[in-house]
Amino acid sequence: MAGYRGTKDEYARRLRRIEGQVRGIARMVDEDTYCIDVLTQISAVTKALQAVGIGLVEDHLGHCVVEAARSSTEEGQEKVAEASAAIARLVKS
Amino acid sequence: MAGYRGTKDEYARRLRRIEGQVRGIARMVDEDTYCIDVLTQISAVTKALQAVGIGLVEDHLGHCVVEAARSSTEEGQEKVAEASAAIARLVKS
Amino acid sequence: MAGYRGTKDEYARRLRRIEGQVRGIARMVDEDTYCIDVLTQISAVTKALQAVGIGLVEDHLGHCVVEAARSSTEEGQEKVAEASAAIARLVKS
Amino acid sequence: MAGYRGTKDEYARRLRRIEGQVRGIARMVDEDTYCIDVLTQISAVTKALQAVGIGLVEDHLGHCVVEAARSSTEEGQEKVAEASAAIARLVKS
Repeated sequence: MAGYRGTKDEYARRLRRIEGQVRGIARMVDEDTYCIDVLTQISAVTKALQAVGIGLVEDHLGHCVVEAARSSTEEGQEKVAEASAAIARLVKS
Repeated sequence: MAGYRGTKDEYARRLRRIEGQVRGIARMVDEDTYCIDVLTQISAVTKALQAVGIGLVEDHLGHCVVEAARSSTEEGQEKVAEASAAIARLVKS
Repeated sequence: MAGYRGTKDEYARRLRRIEGQVRGIARMVDEDTYCIDVLTQISAVTKALQAVGIGLVEDHLGHCVVEAARSSTEEGQEKVAEASAAIARLVKS
Repeated sequence: MAGYRGTKDEYARRLRRIEGQVRGIARMVDEDTYCIDVLTQISAVTKALQAVGIGLVEDHLGHCVVEAARSSTEEGQEKVAEASAAIARLVKS
């Protein structure tokens, strides 16, 4: 079971919205919209995506990592290493 | 005319791909895919979006800002201030 | 005890280096160094700082959060919420 | 002459402050300060550094790039390419 099982619908709603925003950016480009306005939308969508990522990190830590830590030290450390690598990718993106 | 007029098709192609990737993330969530794999995709899409933003900044500087600078100092400075604010939003997203 | 107790010296060494790099940037500005060269150094120092932050997140998760999770569900969730807020600040910086 | 010649003192002041903040982080680590408090400081310093970078970009665009654009199309495009690469590094850091 995914760590985000309790918030699936919320993520689905937010991702549908982001998908629509990306489609909107494509339409802006197609209609030769002024560069700055397109850039403003790209920053907004990037932030929305990061917010989904941050939420997923919290869900993952709160379920998968905590559950692994309670079952064994070794499993806990494995999950921590894996989560830290994913957090690093998010920070660097 | 938009600063990116010469690369419109390329941006359209990349944005369609990003739109598909966001749809793919939604499907992963719907299918209870492991959090880490969803996070990996979110970082990849965030980077792809940023790359489009960076490309648009270069196009905008190379056309709109340069053209304004050549027409008058005042117009040039106005465009620089506007572009710098957009760059700041991109850096902070 | 801090989660990073095992890697304190390494962080101390990296932070001293970063401090020296910031001093170096100030010297570049004082000597009217070309903007682009100063910007290159700022990006390098920002990445070095982020890397220290990512390391501290892993140490914190691997010690403080895991230990809390093993002692009680409630403590574990508290630490997860706190760590997630710190990770969000790192992602947004 | 550097594009930031008009704001040199202000950058010097801000960089000295950032240098002190990095020294402060090293002291926090030396004193086994709680990881989350160290992370909060790292995010603050990262943002301060980025703000200096964003300021330098605006100064560079407003002086070096605009001056090059007004002297010749070729010089203008060269400066735009160079500035865009520096902006990309800042966005990705």
